[in-house]
Amino acid sequence: MRTIKLVVQYDGTEFVGWQRQGRGVSIQGLIEEALGRIDGAPVALHGAGRTDAGAHALGQVASARVATTMEDGTMVRALNAHLPDAIRIVEVCTMPDGFHARFSATGKAYEYRIWNDRVVPPFLRLYAWHVTGALDLGSMREAARAIVGEHDFAGFRGAGAVNHTTVRRITAAGWRPADDRLLVFEIEGAGFLRYMVRSLVGMLVEIGRGQRPASDMAQRLAFPDRSAAGRTAPARGLFLVKVTY
Amino acid sequence: MRTIKLVVQYDGTEFVGWQRQGRGVSIQGLIEEALGRIDGAPVALHGAGRTDAGAHALGQVASARVATTMEDGTMVRALNAHLPDAIRIVEVCTMPDGFHARFSATGKAYEYRIWNDRVVPPFLRLYAWHVTGALDLGSMREAARAIVGEHDFAGFRGAGAVNHTTVRRITAAGWRPADDRLLVFEIEGAGFLRYMVRSLVGMLVEIGRGQRPASDMAQRLAFPDRSAAGRTAPARGLFLVKVTY
Repeated sequence: MRTIKLVVQYDGTEFVGWQRQGRGVSIQGLIEEALGRIDGAPVALHGAGRTDAGAHALGQVASARVATTMEDGTMVRALNAHLPDAIRIVEVCTMPDGFHARFSATGKAYEYRIWNDRVVPPFLRLYAWHVTGALDLGSMREAARAIVGEHDFAGFRGAGAVNHTTVRRITAAGWRPADDRLLVFEIEGAGFLRYMVRSLVGMLVEIGRGQRPASDMAQRLAFPDRSAAGRTAPARGLFLVKVTY
Repeated sequence: MRTIKLVVQYDGTEFVGWQRQGRGVSIQGLIEEALGRIDGAPVALHGAGRTDAGAHALGQVASARVATTMEDGTMVRALNAHLPDAIRIVEVCTMPDGFHARFSATGKAYEYRIWNDRVVPPFLRLYAWHVTGALDLGSMREAARAIVGEHDFAGFRGAGAVNHTTVRRITAAGWRPADDRLLVFEIEGAGFLRYMVRSLVGMLVEIGRGQRPASDMAQRLAFPDRSAAGRTAPARGLFLVKVTY
């Protein structure tokens, strides 16, 4: 038996999310099936983190223990042959035993893409949140700066989420205007709560629209209101960009 | 009655192509339906050119005669409200009577996108041709230069196509490497035969792979072989970029 690390890209549009669930097709489930066909026995796959239904990945990482002696490069081709085009394995590496995609991870980076114009191009309809009307990027940048650091993000998570601690350390957060209509929010940190990025983006857009002042971000981080249910940005704009180890 | 010009973007993946057909959903058909709902009577829509099933448009142009007095900007919103997200009207203008999207056009520009790497990213699977193995861009550039000018393109069209003349004038043709793995072939001309761009790209890739010399392009243009059935590149890499008037 050896431990392998997989780097995975996917278009999450048609799936129920990363995680295997009672019903619906999951990315984890499809890769486990493909691994099982190669290994000749069921394989348990561990992802660095879940992604929501409709959210995407440019560099999700997963790990598994396998018995096969197939070479890593051959395994990339064999897995892709068993997977739909919407999921691509871009790398397989053999790792020291003890490597675990989730527990060994030291950080993650996400991107959230917003299309800010009257009409959303057909090619972005599944890969960006369509926000019409003017957005004040200055206020959104100011609010993004307040996110960096160690904060209690209890006010920015999904309803029903249960965590021992809701304190997380964010090492970078900011807006990269890809062109004047495609705004990309980039955020990196040691860990994230469920819905945290989408919830932060929801408030950032309310700030950009002038519906609340930029200072509301620092305010809610300093005085986390567990019941404050702000707008959560839709999953389709969210990309898991990379996982660091 | 007035004449309007529509600029249209679409993701052609799910449609039978631009043109209304006996069966299946066409882009022309859906826009005609949307126009009919606004105008209260059937409307005939004329596209600048057909695009094949699975091919896309960044700037298709169409024209129609309508009775409605709705303002152009309002019509953009009303049409988009009746259309699926995969089709977007980006502009409606009132034109002088006599304007016709096809007959008034003076030129068209297409792009053909190729992904040249081992694994195709999920986000490009419907928008590029996946070509593995090394491509000699130098030979492909040399062959592309031979396309510019007035030639008989009889050797580069779909089987069964019937045209009075197969001579076309190409004003620009070349490769733009978007990054080292995404190759984009750009071509502009006064007019194109059916399957012409995909057929040219098919031969260009054979040249890039070293399966034939770059000089084969000039050769087939100088001595058009109507029966030579080269490889036609798949529709999903093809984008109608703009139509000029």
